[in-house]
Amino acid sequence: MNRAEIIEEIKRKKSFLSIGLDTDIIKIPKHLLKYDNPVLEFNKQIIDATQDLCISYKINTAFYECNGVQGWQSLIETYNYLPKNTFSIADAKRGDIGNTSSMYAKAFFDKASSGMSFDSVTVAPYMGKDSVAPFLAFEGKWAILLALTSNEGSYDFQQLKDQDNRLFEHVIKKSSEWGNASNLMYVVGATRGEAFLDIRKYAPDSFLLVPGVGAQGGSLEEVCKYGMNKDCGLIVNSSRAIIYASAQEDFAERAREEALKIQIDMKMQLENINF
Amino acid sequence: MNRAEIIEEIKRKKSFLSIGLDTDIIKIPKHLLKYDNPVLEFNKQIIDATQDLCISYKINTAFYECNGVQGWQSLIETYNYLPKNTFSIADAKRGDIGNTSSMYAKAFFDKASSGMSFDSVTVAPYMGKDSVAPFLAFEGKWAILLALTSNEGSYDFQQLKDQDNRLFEHVIKKSSEWGNASNLMYVVGATRGEAFLDIRKYAPDSFLLVPGVGAQGGSLEEVCKYGMNKDCGLIVNSSRAIIYASAQEDFAERAREEALKIQIDMKMQLENINF
Repeated sequence: MNRAEIIEEIKRKKSFLSIGLDTDIIKIPKHLLKYDNPVLEFNKQIIDATQDLCISYKINTAFYECNGVQGWQSLIETYNYLPKNTFSIADAKRGDIGNTSSMYAKAFFDKASSGMSFDSVTVAPYMGKDSVAPFLAFEGKWAILLALTSNEGSYDFQQLKDQDNRLFEHVIKKSSEWGNASNLMYVVGATRGEAFLDIRKYAPDSFLLVPGVGAQGGSLEEVCKYGMNKDCGLIVNSSRAIIYASAQEDFAERAREEALKIQIDMKMQLENINF
Repeated sequence: MNRAEIIEEIKRKKSFLSIGLDTDIIKIPKHLLKYDNPVLEFNKQIIDATQDLCISYKINTAFYECNGVQGWQSLIETYNYLPKNTFSIADAKRGDIGNTSSMYAKAFFDKASSGMSFDSVTVAPYMGKDSVAPFLAFEGKWAILLALTSNEGSYDFQQLKDQDNRLFEHVIKKSSEWGNASNLMYVVGATRGEAFLDIRKYAPDSFLLVPGVGAQGGSLEEVCKYGMNKDCGLIVNSSRAIIYASAQEDFAERAREEALKIQIDMKMQLENINF
């Protein structure tokens, strides 16, 4: 999906919600264990119940990799089930020297090679330009670069400041020389309300992928107040608060209810920018 | 393998060589394509031909992931073929918030879950403590944290300096509060000779995983001059220069010859520390 298509879906659904499929077999309802592939069945039911309320699904690859080949198979089958009009995110936090990052890009973007062709993949910036560029080289795809994350450890290095800027600001400034608002987004944690002002100084037009609303405690209102731009410019993700709203047979209905609550809030926020 | 066992193997083999299995089906000899799994066959023959000369194998996960489920299967089968007395490295550059990093740790350390139990995994430090700690929580396993890498992009962020230190120095100082020289190593590129002096200021006892000798142009002599400590303290990796020494039927023999040349140089370097 390109930038115009993402904006169009936000307008149509009055939502900028991404739902995170951090699917852990230990946490899914027990009645699903009778299926051949309980993780896939869980994901399908979540997707069926929520796809009119969200514009994106984010698949956290770690939750699949930990189950080896079977997990990787579930990852591919879940990818194949994603509705074509939702923005697909491989939340994989990859990044390595150039020729290796090219292989990671193939893993998530080149269906003929790997069986998957996500719209985007999350990328760690530590290794710099040649670790990010191979993802940007894929026509029509996106790299979503870690900038300021929502976890406690984000204070360890991301806030280090040289004479000019903090590290996360350098990441945004520097990477804007490698890509643009049509192939590069940034991860900015929702637990950092006013930090969005700093981010918007350097990335006024970019879409920001915002985790941390819900289970991690971020506020949607704060995120919108400081982070929204004229095109919305936000994709706000919630994982656990939606997909694990219930561990019973009603899990998909309850996931829909949680997604609907967020979508209603998002609709109100979008009215502020005359969407 | 624990620290004492690694040192013992270095003494026994008079080598601190790691061989990187960055195996790309496009680059392997054509006669292997007749096998059911050419990548696995290539890896097995490389391992058979070199295991007395190296103390470690490093598997670059990107080269397997790009082939989807089949690639992941090759990764597991290659892991299973690694000799038990070599230090196994999953070069995966993972790292995410705590509960997700726990899943990545399971993917590479917990055989019951994923089919693999590497000795170590490479980890990106950008997200800080809670992204690294889950790897350190696995008894007897190692996290190998990116510090100063060998690629051009390492100049983009790793060298940023606040009033005290550069980012890569902060990574080493801070992470030494989370782990120790028995469960934490650092990646330091061989293309940075004198930078090893700065690294050794903060990590005098740690093992350093050193890529960039060979195809990337680093010098073994320089690395040893500035980076070696009393326990050797170095695991120097070479990938392409060894495994792609020939694209003909003699590839394994030629790989052995290249590995032997490096091992002979390493033996000389080890004499400097009375090993």
